[in-house]
Amino acid sequence: MTQANKKHVSKYQEIHHKKFPAGTKGVWVDEKTEGKYSLITEEISLPAAVIKQQSLENNLKWMQQFANHHQVKLSPHGKTTMTPAFFEQQLEAGAWGVTVATAPHAQVAAEAGAKNIMMANQLVGKANMAMVKQTIEQYGVNFYCCVDSVANADQLHQYFSQHDVKPNVLIEFGVEGGRCGCRNPEEVVALAKHVSQLDSLNLAGLEVYEGVIHGDNAEDDIRQFLATTVKTVEKLAENKLITEQHPIVTGAGSAWYDVVAESFAACQHLNAIIRPGCYLIHDTGIYQDAQDLVMARAQKNQGYACDLGGNLESALEVWAYVISRPEPNKAVIGLGKRDVAFDAGLPIPERGYRDGAEIAVQGLVATAIMDQHTFVTVPEGSDLAVGDIIAFSTSHPCLTFDKWKYICVADEAHNVHQFVETCF
Amino acid sequence: MTQANKKHVSKYQEIHHKKFPAGTKGVWVDEKTEGKYSLITEEISLPAAVIKQQSLENNLKWMQQFANHHQVKLSPHGKTTMTPAFFEQQLEAGAWGVTVATAPHAQVAAEAGAKNIMMANQLVGKANMAMVKQTIEQYGVNFYCCVDSVANADQLHQYFSQHDVKPNVLIEFGVEGGRCGCRNPEEVVALAKHVSQLDSLNLAGLEVYEGVIHGDNAEDDIRQFLATTVKTVEKLAENKLITEQHPIVTGAGSAWYDVVAESFAACQHLNAIIRPGCYLIHDTGIYQDAQDLVMARAQKNQGYACDLGGNLESALEVWAYVISRPEPNKAVIGLGKRDVAFDAGLPIPERGYRDGAEIAVQGLVATAIMDQHTFVTVPEGSDLAVGDIIAFSTSHPCLTFDKWKYICVADEAHNVHQFVETCF
Repeated sequence: MTQANKKHVSKYQEIHHKKFPAGTKGVWVDEKTEGKYSLITEEISLPAAVIKQQSLENNLKWMQQFANHHQVKLSPHGKTTMTPAFFEQQLEAGAWGVTVATAPHAQVAAEAGAKNIMMANQLVGKANMAMVKQTIEQYGVNFYCCVDSVANADQLHQYFSQHDVKPNVLIEFGVEGGRCGCRNPEEVVALAKHVSQLDSLNLAGLEVYEGVIHGDNAEDDIRQFLATTVKTVEKLAENKLITEQHPIVTGAGSAWYDVVAESFAACQHLNAIIRPGCYLIHDTGIYQDAQDLVMARAQKNQGYACDLGGNLESALEVWAYVISRPEPNKAVIGLGKRDVAFDAGLPIPERGYRDGAEIAVQGLVATAIMDQHTFVTVPEGSDLAVGDIIAFSTSHPCLTFDKWKYICVADEAHNVHQFVETCF
Repeated sequence: MTQANKKHVSKYQEIHHKKFPAGTKGVWVDEKTEGKYSLITEEISLPAAVIKQQSLENNLKWMQQFANHHQVKLSPHGKTTMTPAFFEQQLEAGAWGVTVATAPHAQVAAEAGAKNIMMANQLVGKANMAMVKQTIEQYGVNFYCCVDSVANADQLHQYFSQHDVKPNVLIEFGVEGGRCGCRNPEEVVALAKHVSQLDSLNLAGLEVYEGVIHGDNAEDDIRQFLATTVKTVEKLAENKLITEQHPIVTGAGSAWYDVVAESFAACQHLNAIIRPGCYLIHDTGIYQDAQDLVMARAQKNQGYACDLGGNLESALEVWAYVISRPEPNKAVIGLGKRDVAFDAGLPIPERGYRDGAEIAVQGLVATAIMDQHTFVTVPEGSDLAVGDIIAFSTSHPCLTFDKWKYICVADEAHNVHQFVETCF
């Protein structure tokens, strides 16, 4: 048993003995001495969010091997799960650090043991800066954040010049019509010149998020954008605006990490870092679609994603009861917007259970979702009944995770042996 | 200071001295001895969800007075906030009990001191039933849940006949094309006959949720449906299927509570209970629209809602920073789907602050939202800058609340003096 796993177990045991706070959804009710709780035989309160451990471990290894092969560092975006137990596993598997979106996230990543923490976002506001300062002081982490304006750089300087910690900053390079980021290389160079004169900040490289580039020519446009990114960071290094020996260049959400890895891997003198997050959990919706495109690109280009064998697997399910069968073709499920993401497709019935045995869910389709209910269309002749359990897969794991304080981790037999805590 | 308020303060002080867990968003960073934290001068980490205490208290009193006047009991739906500190205030203001959607919710309501807990939903599954049994045993509460099928009634009987607690059940009456519930009075009567023979359950009345009735004739259809509801519960009483002296009849979400109160108030021999939930928090979106219709109906009918004076006020804001101004007409806000409801309209900029002073936010419009970012269109000539704070109002409070573990409670000067814990 590894050190990280020992820590999980001890956390789990602590929960196990203390019991959960009143009203914690998706937990067991009657304590069992052996510490395993069967979802199928109703030992867990439903609805519950369930991680399939084997799929999680598969995804963990798959992406780390992908990054290793391309000689890029992996800094998984932690915002997806905000689950320290999973951060520990990602770090143990070889991740360079943890990527976060906010100052509170950075605290969580530090507490989980990350030594490199990249905030792929602007650090704005006194209390947020204070939180980062405390995190750097308390945990001794290397902290990186993005800047895309003189205003923000000056605000950071104003705060950090009064304190004894020096954050690393990455200039964000973006695209017209996109999200944050300087809109062209000239702006990047001008901002770099400004930042390099602020002695409270260490300019460490360039950050991009290619995921905001859409359209029919997305792949070409992204490759072009990444090429410009590499040229720009090289220019900053040539001009001694970045004094790091290996300037950072970082990009990649969960949709284009292959293209980013390929584009950045060519530059051995750069410190190339990819930041996918959803790969760890994956889904049967938007990220499955994105991964299908990754695999199609790999097949076309004899890319490594195919050679690597296997693929990402959807690791998250939400289990819930049929609570009403009010009309022949309608079932109402005790699962709602409070429990599962609904912004990128409704949950998909994968398997059903009744009295501990599997039942068919073919033809069941979720058609609408309310705060605490999901409507499912039931095909002619189905005997789906009140009390039946349905395990749903999901689309967009981030927005399911943030609905839960504790998430079940289950084995292949759907026995829950661990409850991991989220920190949203 | 009331007993309930003392409890809040003690809870707050406990948090205050223990500090929050790492990564808790929307909290203070540097502890201040006087225990007040200014949002305007950046003593709170943003984004933060903020309750305006005066508006909350206004709403609390307004709806209780409305219910009192109509001689209907108020059992606020707790699912909106799932905040025990607010449940306590609602009970203290005169609420009959707390309405909930799930078994874990029932535990929270009991812990907050509710003696009557109505689960306006079906209680399904062994672990959920066990949770309710424990709650009844531990807190001695009167628990009510809905049934709309023989299957569910039999499952409840199978569980509770083996235990020494007897839940009250309400038969749910629904409409074709709606959510749960028997589809006509004949089904209700047949199910009541079945339930009345199960000695482990106490049939206490009828439950409806009129909020699923839509369309051009919604008001007439709802009045008709409520009239049928009253007739049906009277029939159950006449036939001795309900043995309670005052059978319960309960309905009302936050949109039609006026119509439900009027319809039920006519029946003095019934125990009429309304269950609005969102009124406590209110919004500037879908519930503002619904309340405008309530007020328009009151004006038309010389109804009490207008006589009562005042009105519900939007009590929830989400405060966040401008983190990027990448294009002249675009601001990117550090606020996303992780922080605020987005299913019924995007957050609306209400006020802005810079260096502790108010700034104009006229013309700012949120146009898109991502997991951690909101895009705002900025009008020509605005000097909105990185680091400016925007206080947004919201639509659909339920889905903002469930994104937060702690919610700030602020006074009129935007000083936070309490952090309430949510129990999702």
